[in-house]
Amino acid sequence: MKTAITPTRAENFSEWYQNLIVAADLAENSPVRGCMTIKPYGWAIWELMRDEMDKRIKAAGVQNANFPLLIPIDYFNREAEHVAGFAKECAVVTHHRLKMIDGTLQPDPDAKLTDAYIIRPTSETIIGESMSRWVQSWRDLPLKLNQWVNVMRWEMRPRMFLRTSEFNWQEGHNVFATHEEANADARKMHAMYAEYMKNVLAAPVIAGEKTPEERFAGADHTYTVEQIMQDGKALQAGTSHDLGQHFAKSFDIKYLGCDGKLQYAWTTSWGTSTRMMGGLFMIHADDDGLVLPPVVAPYQIVIIPIVREESADSLNSYAENLGAKLRELNLRVLVDTTDMRAPDKMWKWIKRGVPLRVEIGAREMENNTVTITRRDIGKESKQTITTDELIANAADIMKTIQVEMYERALKHRNSQIHDVATLADLEKELAKGTTGFFRIKYDLTKNAEFEGLIEKYKISRRCLDNDDPSFVYVAKSY
Amino acid sequence: MKTAITPTRAENFSEWYQNLIVAADLAENSPVRGCMTIKPYGWAIWELMRDEMDKRIKAAGVQNANFPLLIPIDYFNREAEHVAGFAKECAVVTHHRLKMIDGTLQPDPDAKLTDAYIIRPTSETIIGESMSRWVQSWRDLPLKLNQWVNVMRWEMRPRMFLRTSEFNWQEGHNVFATHEEANADARKMHAMYAEYMKNVLAAPVIAGEKTPEERFAGADHTYTVEQIMQDGKALQAGTSHDLGQHFAKSFDIKYLGCDGKLQYAWTTSWGTSTRMMGGLFMIHADDDGLVLPPVVAPYQIVIIPIVREESADSLNSYAENLGAKLRELNLRVLVDTTDMRAPDKMWKWIKRGVPLRVEIGAREMENNTVTITRRDIGKESKQTITTDELIANAADIMKTIQVEMYERALKHRNSQIHDVATLADLEKELAKGTTGFFRIKYDLTKNAEFEGLIEKYKISRRCLDNDDPSFVYVAKSY
Repeated sequence: MKTAITPTRAENFSEWYQNLIVAADLAENSPVRGCMTIKPYGWAIWELMRDEMDKRIKAAGVQNANFPLLIPIDYFNREAEHVAGFAKECAVVTHHRLKMIDGTLQPDPDAKLTDAYIIRPTSETIIGESMSRWVQSWRDLPLKLNQWVNVMRWEMRPRMFLRTSEFNWQEGHNVFATHEEANADARKMHAMYAEYMKNVLAAPVIAGEKTPEERFAGADHTYTVEQIMQDGKALQAGTSHDLGQHFAKSFDIKYLGCDGKLQYAWTTSWGTSTRMMGGLFMIHADDDGLVLPPVVAPYQIVIIPIVREESADSLNSYAENLGAKLRELNLRVLVDTTDMRAPDKMWKWIKRGVPLRVEIGAREMENNTVTITRRDIGKESKQTITTDELIANAADIMKTIQVEMYERALKHRNSQIHDVATLADLEKELAKGTTGFFRIKYDLTKNAEFEGLIEKYKISRRCLDNDDPSFVYVAKSY
Repeated sequence: MKTAITPTRAENFSEWYQNLIVAADLAENSPVRGCMTIKPYGWAIWELMRDEMDKRIKAAGVQNANFPLLIPIDYFNREAEHVAGFAKECAVVTHHRLKMIDGTLQPDPDAKLTDAYIIRPTSETIIGESMSRWVQSWRDLPLKLNQWVNVMRWEMRPRMFLRTSEFNWQEGHNVFATHEEANADARKMHAMYAEYMKNVLAAPVIAGEKTPEERFAGADHTYTVEQIMQDGKALQAGTSHDLGQHFAKSFDIKYLGCDGKLQYAWTTSWGTSTRMMGGLFMIHADDDGLVLPPVVAPYQIVIIPIVREESADSLNSYAENLGAKLRELNLRVLVDTTDMRAPDKMWKWIKRGVPLRVEIGAREMENNTVTITRRDIGKESKQTITTDELIANAADIMKTIQVEMYERALKHRNSQIHDVATLADLEKELAKGTTGFFRIKYDLTKNAEFEGLIEKYKISRRCLDNDDPSFVYVAKSY
């Protein structure tokens, strides 16, 4: 059977992914090394994802703010683990002017900065500096801040959406009076991420704590939500960190307690990024292109009038009219009245993953019926119903698609979790090519033999089992 | 009379502005030279401004996208005027790694980039590069793109919101088949900006074309909306450029016409930024702090229960209940039940410019009345009405405040426009200290004598008179 995307997922998952991005017109590589351009259709998905996340962030009592893009190099010196983790591959700003020298524009030697800046790879340091001034007494706590910004980490092996040098994200930074509150909040934001993945992205996760080996640079505890792709690989889709007093001590974030004692505060940070889009695509898309959950679909319904020359005008306006009625129900609807051939339109919107396709021909118009097809199911879901039935049920159809996409992904996730009792068993499975998450006693992984498997099979510890932290999930990952 | 902000506007407008920003908790200078941190209250205003603008941008058929932060230096070489205008003071990225050398982190000499990048000061070049691939035939036109991003221009004399090295903005970039369409669209976006300033920011503008001396680097025509501050100085609040074929030729943006002929396209660009916030503050704020138009006020109404110890709980919950009812009308309402003293609460929200203050004491609760005060008018507007009246009229009060704030600003603007017949008259007014916009024959400004006045009085040509382009408006500006 011919598919819209070649190769198929089964043939070559990684090439399929690249071609999917082209076919659905989501993004492209840019002339800037490791950076991508997100095209309008891709960005429209991100705006919906962002708004859903922002709603939850605000409901959690967090305020948005905006901190500088550049960070004085010196700030990275202050937190030793953080330096090691982030100061390595980053963009360094060393000059503030260009000059035409020998006919080419070059950094002006007279405009060299005494102290260089780096483009933020993450903002714990510069936000910590502000917090040290904003937090004075227990009355100022908790302080919960978030920003939606671009960050940069120089990537040697970039891959669109999954790993790019520049990416867009939200980074939350909270301060508390006690460790207990800070840790509880880090877990609360972690739970918020899991809920978001489920209800917005229709993406099941494995949620748990990172092992010490995989923690964020400068954290006491890192909580992660790990998604599982159709090829069985893991994707870290969001993390929440209990930073202990590391940053409070490095940046002097102190408060006067109600007991009159000056003491260090406790901080957390938590983030999700455009990387989630890569997960969204690799969890749901198929060999014909994108499959979008209705909550984040720029168009939830596309109406395609199957026009013949003699009936074009009346059919188009009939379709527009139906579109207007569906929009009144707060649905995002596109009526495609462009002059492409109907099969081309159909494939265009299949590739872009519109959840519900509505086709109307001249006969359907006469009978007040429409032919609908669900993108997530395809041909087998095709049926002809009355226009009134469509209007009455459209919102419910969206909900059903959202729920069923989640259930399908959950079933897949569950099929990709394997218990292994020993390292030998783990290696046997890996050697066989078994994909997915392997659940194994964490203690068994603390040795050179396991390091050998990491090396050989490119696996890593994804997170501890939330129900029994003596077990760890191990998988290949993006 | 004691004012919340000292000095007052009359005493020292520029210091008043700095202190206003502190008093209203809007922003602060950051440790990064020329860059500011926008605090939660300031950012909440920006989010509302951004959403109102974004709605209009989308309604104009423009799609949001996202292009890289970094621009290869070489791109600036391609458009001669653009180089001259923008390549001078910018942040240059020369390395992609840091290294610990002699105990301090420094750019790693082994990680020097062969070709340096600059942080975008504006994105005509890198978006032009994409457009050259995205535009192939007349069917691809018009193509209308926008992005909401941060940009950077190294500023030597930064001033919060008005001129900072990094700032947030929207930059629109459109491509058309003909010059006629491009120019009409540049004017359409210009008109959209003027409408936005009026209906969202309650800010009247002088809208017109820039003279050739003041055009954007690389534009054939620049259309500007100039606001006028309370001190009579101008603020360029938004510009829309007809770029002719400059960028189409530099970046090879060509299309195959329906006549089968390959030809260069015509481009426009248009932008507004966080700079508008500075205008918003300097147009409406007074000696007691911010005065916000309801459309962009994070809280449109603040309810302050005037509690005495014995009645605190019942009064607070009565106030919360009233707040809930007002929120049902889609109003943004804060019920301030913190344990600050009532006068302190009152001043806090006066300084932050909340359009309507609602005070409720124990007696008012008993009588089902409230005491309301409009921020834009102050004490004279204070009146006691029934709770039902407040609920019935709150939405209308917001509309009235919005309209009256505009009318007040318009009256001020009109008082600040002066016709002058000769350069001698102009100099006389400037020497006297007359503030505002001076309308003079453009031809009279094309000589060394006028250049002398520019030098001496720090004035500039703001724009041509839209009704009679043989006249130009001249003013001091931010």
